[in-house]
Amino acid sequence: MGATIDPAADVMTLINVFTVEPGRQQELVELLAEATEKAMKHQRGFISANIHKSADGKRVVNYAQWRSRGDFEAMQKNAQAAGHMKAAAAIAKFDPIVCVVASSHTA
Amino acid sequence: MGATIDPAADVMTLINVFTVEPGRQQELVELLAEATEKAMKHQRGFISANIHKSADGKRVVNYAQWRSRGDFEAMQKNAQAAGHMKAAAAIAKFDPIVCVVASSHTA
Repeated sequence: MGATIDPAADVMTLINVFTVEPGRQQELVELLAEATEKAMKHQRGFISANIHKSADGKRVVNYAQWRSRGDFEAMQKNAQAAGHMKAAAAIAKFDPIVCVVASSHTA
Repeated sequence: MGATIDPAADVMTLINVFTVEPGRQQELVELLAEATEKAMKHQRGFISANIHKSADGKRVVNYAQWRSRGDFEAMQKNAQAAGHMKAAAAIAKFDPIVCVVASSHTA
């Protein structure tokens, strides 16, 4: 299981950087994984969510892909998805960056 | 061309979030692409660099993969690579997050 980053693919990328209270990184990782499986994954336009944890224990980054910005915004209005994000917001600050792939370079 | 995000792969991920002066986003994208092609790509352990630009014009995010943290740190000491990063630092602030993939969820 995994996602592909491809500048030629017509997808919207959301890079969400969470800053988490010390000692609660793993809890946030599990919360986001559960939110993805229970809510986001079943919304129209969901492609992938890839949850990363920082080596310093202070951040969690979700690299997520949606078919379009419209699909992503519709998900944000979904009550179940919003409930999960509220639970994440209770233990972390987050900085969501809506973006597109400009270029990809491989070895 | 593209990269794969896979929690089972033994790679180090660097998510570098650049905050750029208004109007200089494209310049930074090109600078990072050139730095990758000319310097980073030729360093030991380089796997991929994936440069994203935010819809609001204020950020650039480089999602990069290295074989190990040791390889990444060796690259940072490389004079040519350091020169490119200094040029990026002249027009943007950056927040590099060293991390690993905790989980990946696909549609």
